Amino acid sequence: MKPYVLGIDIGGTNTVFGIVDARGVVIASDSIKTAKHSNIEDYIEELYTEASRLIKANDAEDKIHGIGIGAPNGNYYNGMIIDAPNLPWPSPIPLAQMVSSKFGIPVAVTNDANAAAIGEMTYGAARGMKDFIMITLGTGVGSGIVINGQVVYGHDGFAGELGHMIVKRNNGRLCGCGRTGCLEAYCSATGVARSAREFLEIRTEPSSLRNLPIDQITSKDVYDAAMSGDKLAKDVFEYTGTILGEAMADMMVFSSPEAFVLFGGLAKSGELLLKPLREAMERSMLGVFKGKAKVLLSELKDADAAVLGASALGWEAKPAPAAPAAPVVE
Amino acid sequence: MKPYVLGIDIGGTNTVFGIVDARGVVIASDSIKTAKHSNIEDYIEELYTEASRLIKANDAEDKIHGIGIGAPNGNYYNGMIIDAPNLPWPSPIPLAQMVSSKFGIPVAVTNDANAAAIGEMTYGAARGMKDFIMITLGTGVGSGIVINGQVVYGHDGFAGELGHMIVKRNNGRLCGCGRTGCLEAYCSATGVARSAREFLEIRTEPSSLRNLPIDQITSKDVYDAAMSGDKLAKDVFEYTGTILGEAMADMMVFSSPEAFVLFGGLAKSGELLLKPLREAMERSMLGVFKGKAKVLLSELKDADAAVLGASALGWEAKPAPAAPAAPVVE
Repeated sequence: MKPYVLGIDIGGTNTVFGIVDARGVVIASDSIKTAKHSNIEDYIEELYTEASRLIKANDAEDKIHGIGIGAPNGNYYNGMIIDAPNLPWPSPIPLAQMVSSKFGIPVAVTNDANAAAIGEMTYGAARGMKDFIMITLGTGVGSGIVINGQVVYGHDGFAGELGHMIVKRNNGRLCGCGRTGCLEAYCSATGVARSAREFLEIRTEPSSLRNLPIDQITSKDVYDAAMSGDKLAKDVFEYTGTILGEAMADMMVFSSPEAFVLFGGLAKSGELLLKPLREAMERSMLGVFKGKAKVLLSELKDADAAVLGASALGWEAKPAPAAPAAPVVE
Repeated sequence: MKPYVLGIDIGGTNTVFGIVDARGVVIASDSIKTAKHSNIEDYIEELYTEASRLIKANDAEDKIHGIGIGAPNGNYYNGMIIDAPNLPWPSPIPLAQMVSSKFGIPVAVTNDANAAAIGEMTYGAARGMKDFIMITLGTGVGSGIVINGQVVYGHDGFAGELGHMIVKRNNGRLCGCGRTGCLEAYCSATGVARSAREFLEIRTEPSSLRNLPIDQITSKDVYDAAMSGDKLAKDVFEYTGTILGEAMADMMVFSSPEAFVLFGGLAKSGELLLKPLREAMERSMLGVFKGKAKVLLSELKDADAAVLGASALGWEAKPAPAAPAAPVVE
């Protein structure tokens, strides 16, 4: 087997790519601007030029086993990106097909949260685990579910959208998906900022957050205030952790994972978030599962995590589809 | 491979067992009383005597490939029954070990809802499906989740307890599990009867159900009243179907199954339940999943279903554990 894989993480702003070896060491990485090209062909062309330059500079020509791509709404079964709100190109995008025919290397695609789960299972906090749930707490809430050592893609390739579990059935917050009451509307970075604004409007107590323009408050502001001892800001984290912990108790009755692995900006809030989360999770847990699920933080370095996760999928990329509905398109 | 399996379904009242061939035909079946023996050894002895008689009478000696057992709280990984509320024997019960050493035949154990899912996948409405969720609507609400053609057992063997998803976070009904707001407290046969009693107390309109002693109303009474056009009874089914449909939309974001297969007494309520269920499910569905999930009724005959489901597991039973934590105990 060739010694390297190429991992590509496509975000709304940047596309980061890196050459990774079998032990999860990022040999070299670089990036291009995702949104620079309104034409997808031009984007693929620049990606090819820059990645080829990186591969050549690191003496890795003919040494790339496969390419793994993590992309918003990336579908593992057909290698397409479908209706990704933050990407500038018309949907659907036959990404795996375009990249593999350009590079002449097998390509596998999945969404960013699944890529993170694969990275964590291969190189991070979930090494050796066969059953865990990755929850990414960023602008939104994403998830990658691993059962029996396999990522759960479901019948259509879109499984694992736990950010869109309904946590508040009535009078819930409007979510970006158009429905109301989704987990994501409460437990994302955006959700934390919304909670702070709600608390500031409803309550009358003093808070250092009142010194900021209310519609510009970010989750970082709430974190900083809470760390300085601001009661209202601490209550926002208590509220957020409680909702997430209750939701995790519901995820437990589904697949009974060994652990939840949290990833993303909000996961770095530490005990501010984790303490109420663990308490709510155990309090809400069905008896048979009490005390069984670990709550872990990602062990992948931020700078490397996205590329590592995507790259791990490159080991699975196969040169030709085995059947019409095969997961990998070349 | 030997041509038959023995399926055993252990219920609180009866234990039904049958000889089944590879096409899912129940060659012969019989039953014993589960609760007759307060001693588990005596129970196994009678089960062995009666099953052996059946096997001999059908000329099936040395033709049984394996034994599959569906039992309340049966654990696939270790073959134990743990804390089953309706069984008379002290917990834990090393069932697979006891039965296999008595019969000299490999045994696999799982819980009743998982057995039903395996039966449906092998012989019923889910034939050919790799991703579906079985929901059993009986005295309680059970579930068997199949992903990638495999039953989801989770890290500890207890996964798939969807009857204990929280559908009402605040002021929910008390559930048998000791928590409040579980799906089972609303969408089981017992839940339907409770809803009817609640509706009768809260509302003042006439209903044929008012002719019955309120604390003796059963789901069958509610069904009969609804079929006779009783508005309140029809509203109970509307309420039940809506809660179940909303919960199913939440299950969808987890594993994106091709279908839900409903089984059990309540599933026979037909469109009374299914119409509001489908409407609520589609209304609550995350955009990408809308219109994708089939809602099917079990295709297994009632009399055979439990034995068939358990028996299908018998094909998987292996003579010796591959490792200390192996799923099958002999």
